[in-house]
Amino acid sequence: MSLPQPILITDADDPRIAEFRNIRERDLVGRQAGFIAEGTVVLRLLAAAHNRLNPSFVAEKILLLENRVDGVSDILKLFPEDVPVYVASAAVLDAIAGFHLHRGVLALGRRVTMPTAQDLLRNVSAPGLIAIACGISNHDNIGSMFRNAAAFGAAAVLLDETCCDPLYRKALRVSVGSVLTVPFARGGTADDLLRTVAGEGFDIWALSPRGTADVRDIPAGGRIALVTGTEGTGLPQDILSRFRTASIPQRPGLDSLNAATATGIALYEIARRQGLV
Amino acid sequence: MSLPQPILITDADDPRIAEFRNIRERDLVGRQAGFIAEGTVVLRLLAAAHNRLNPSFVAEKILLLENRVDGVSDILKLFPEDVPVYVASAAVLDAIAGFHLHRGVLALGRRVTMPTAQDLLRNVSAPGLIAIACGISNHDNIGSMFRNAAAFGAAAVLLDETCCDPLYRKALRVSVGSVLTVPFARGGTADDLLRTVAGEGFDIWALSPRGTADVRDIPAGGRIALVTGTEGTGLPQDILSRFRTASIPQRPGLDSLNAATATGIALYEIARRQGLV
Repeated sequence: MSLPQPILITDADDPRIAEFRNIRERDLVGRQAGFIAEGTVVLRLLAAAHNRLNPSFVAEKILLLENRVDGVSDILKLFPEDVPVYVASAAVLDAIAGFHLHRGVLALGRRVTMPTAQDLLRNVSAPGLIAIACGISNHDNIGSMFRNAAAFGAAAVLLDETCCDPLYRKALRVSVGSVLTVPFARGGTADDLLRTVAGEGFDIWALSPRGTADVRDIPAGGRIALVTGTEGTGLPQDILSRFRTASIPQRPGLDSLNAATATGIALYEIARRQGLV
Repeated sequence: MSLPQPILITDADDPRIAEFRNIRERDLVGRQAGFIAEGTVVLRLLAAAHNRLNPSFVAEKILLLENRVDGVSDILKLFPEDVPVYVASAAVLDAIAGFHLHRGVLALGRRVTMPTAQDLLRNVSAPGLIAIACGISNHDNIGSMFRNAAAFGAAAVLLDETCCDPLYRKALRVSVGSVLTVPFARGGTADDLLRTVAGEGFDIWALSPRGTADVRDIPAGGRIALVTGTEGTGLPQDILSRFRTASIPQRPGLDSLNAATATGIALYEIARRQGLV
């Protein structure tokens, strides 16, 4: 595909780039339509996602700092020609975004398919691995969990309704775009979600500093679902008492590991045993 | 020790709390004297550090939102009585800090001892483990590395001169105070630092996505120094070619793991083999 002619935007109130206005405020209240992809790494993965057969994500439009166009032209060529590319000066771009946007690379993406947890679970074959997060409301942690899930071959990530949106700009950036590559579903209570996962025959393991098994002793084979809870309080006791639990050995008397790091270590251990890496 | 009488501050320009003024601006330019500890978790570890024999860190003063005093009184009792506790209303506190400080718990700490890398290395017995970071300039990553080092029993963290300051407010917070518990030294080029470490007889392993050994196959015993480089470019080639290298198995074709997560996984593997956890 050839590089489309970029369209110069000279007015921050131009309706063609309205979705990029006041990015941070919209981050806080949530977007009705689409998500913001920021930076070249995420842009490249958005292009890859868009070009798949039956894509899960597509790009709607791209907005660049004018002096970044040449540097990302190889990525721009990957998008279909009907995805408009807008460019603006630093002053106009900052006026649009509402803050100084030093990366200068933005795209508006849209999620096209909304698979249910059950859809995703039925696509996982043995030996397999999925990650489930309950109550992870920190965007850094959600982003890191997707990055780790991608690194260790998790087939899907399931988020309960109390997790934050992984398509939020910062989570997507921290995930280095993995949110666009690892299939995910979000919604329902932790209880409902785990009932669905159990009903599909997965081996459910809840990760907790109080877990009884060593994470290294999780039996390989089958399809394993690793469940992580919030930092601080962790998974609720009723979940820990209903499922098998595992912990990561660490020095006593400390705050437990960060939730995303702990998930990464557990995914790493399970992925090795499942032959996924 | 009994709880000292808190001193009410009603004027953001009061010289007694001058070090807390415009916290974010000072974060950017660096502080001449002391560091800012923020939040109850870090405050508790600062108290523990202060009370050690020959402490490495002491508290100079504490500044609290007035309605937080009762909630942290058990921590305040741990500080010597000559550490003043100042309190302020939300409006005054925000005017002091220069932004809305929703945690409302601050302390000014000071590093008392400045051990050299050699001092720290000579204190490590076998089987032992230390973490070395070269060029980690992201405060989240530095904080996470200390948290992981603490969790997996690293005896010290050494930072080359291009690493950022782990006592920076955000790094300290992300470390959940581990910067105050894991001995560290910072300075010198990566080359000089690694020469010192090699001279002290440590087994040096450089962590890299291009590493030749599997991180699980690092031989146990002795004193192991794990070296991590920057995200993105990683360790420079001349370091990778001079020392043994190890990698973490992961799915091909992806951005490598986050530097702090990769360090965490490698420390976890080595700590297990060294019997540290």
